[in-house]
Amino acid sequence: MSNFGVHRLRLVNPYAVAFREARSAVGASHLLKAAEEFKSIAVAVADCTLVIGTTAVRNRALHHPLRRLDAETSLTIREQLRAGRVALLFGSEKIGLTNDDFSHCHWLLNIPTEASHISLNLGQAVAVCLHEIARSERASAETGSTPSATPDAAPATAGEAEKITATLLEALHRSGYVKPGNDAVSEKKVRSLMLRLNLSSGDAKVLLGMVRQIAWKLRRVGKD
Amino acid sequence: MSNFGVHRLRLVNPYAVAFREARSAVGASHLLKAAEEFKSIAVAVADCTLVIGTTAVRNRALHHPLRRLDAETSLTIREQLRAGRVALLFGSEKIGLTNDDFSHCHWLLNIPTEASHISLNLGQAVAVCLHEIARSERASAETGSTPSATPDAAPATAGEAEKITATLLEALHRSGYVKPGNDAVSEKKVRSLMLRLNLSSGDAKVLLGMVRQIAWKLRRVGKD
Repeated sequence: MSNFGVHRLRLVNPYAVAFREARSAVGASHLLKAAEEFKSIAVAVADCTLVIGTTAVRNRALHHPLRRLDAETSLTIREQLRAGRVALLFGSEKIGLTNDDFSHCHWLLNIPTEASHISLNLGQAVAVCLHEIARSERASAETGSTPSATPDAAPATAGEAEKITATLLEALHRSGYVKPGNDAVSEKKVRSLMLRLNLSSGDAKVLLGMVRQIAWKLRRVGKD
Repeated sequence: MSNFGVHRLRLVNPYAVAFREARSAVGASHLLKAAEEFKSIAVAVADCTLVIGTTAVRNRALHHPLRRLDAETSLTIREQLRAGRVALLFGSEKIGLTNDDFSHCHWLLNIPTEASHISLNLGQAVAVCLHEIARSERASAETGSTPSATPDAAPATAGEAEKITATLLEALHRSGYVKPGNDAVSEKKVRSLMLRLNLSSGDAKVLLGMVRQIAWKLRRVGKD
């Protein structure tokens, strides 16, 4: 991370023993010292406007757009970085990210590898991703920059999207769209839908206002 | 190495203890088994037509041409690979390559990093170099064709978006979000929001299903 100018490390439920014993590379101790711990992905990415999950698998029945780590994808990420924070999500060495983890992601990212050996070591995957993103920065620095967006036109944060998800889920429950016992599936479905919408911050506010009013109404009539 | 389709590992005077205990990544045991040992760099690279030394240092008084790991350099390497073998030389984790080692190299290669943290972990340096070289192979092999989208991934038609708009407007009316006399403004507001979402056809169907159920519920409780 430090090699490629990325300094914000966030950990979700790190394995305490390994984390306590973790040693930083020479010259990168500040990064490990400043690492933040979170109880859930939702909280860890709440202030991010783009959440990208990494996966070695290319053809699983994903409900998420899957992009390849290449120049085009890196430029997309760099453009997003001008407007807000981008989270690059890596799973554990052994099992990677789960479908549940994926539901917090706008899209998924795959590092192109040989078909016969798709799974990368975690540290190497991080290095390759950050190198690729940094290289696009160097490339685009040579061609100039784009104007900054107004606050309302800026992308909504994951936290803003999550508020809509939670409120819409309540409305869907109360309206009978979500069948009892099907909560987990519906939650993932709604969350991924919200992220795919790529809402602007302004639109997220409008949509949240609508969904809140509807949920409030359904709540009120439910009491009668 | 195996991730990026490189299978010939050559070791010059490896530390015997570490090498005996080395474990390959899952699916790459053939690579470690087939690793060849050499007594000197000269012998190890004897059959190569291009020998490249890697270094974290950019401005030492080198008697060697120094190139940056980027698209141009990768293409040079790939072109050379058509004609013969290319050796990519990495030094030990602690001290890297010596000036003596450099003397066997046609030129030196540097992975661009932050100026404040130039030294990469060995495994990460290898992964980043091989990724960069593999990506240039893909880039030159491709002519720019993209896979065709599934029907559900196609953009929603204006008609599909309009159905959501109409149904959502009904729900907003019934929930009290739309104030009487404000219909025209709200209609435009909801319609432009729906269009800004750039829904896929599949997502439009899902969203319409949700909004319909909510509108149905509000309609039903309104009758009580």
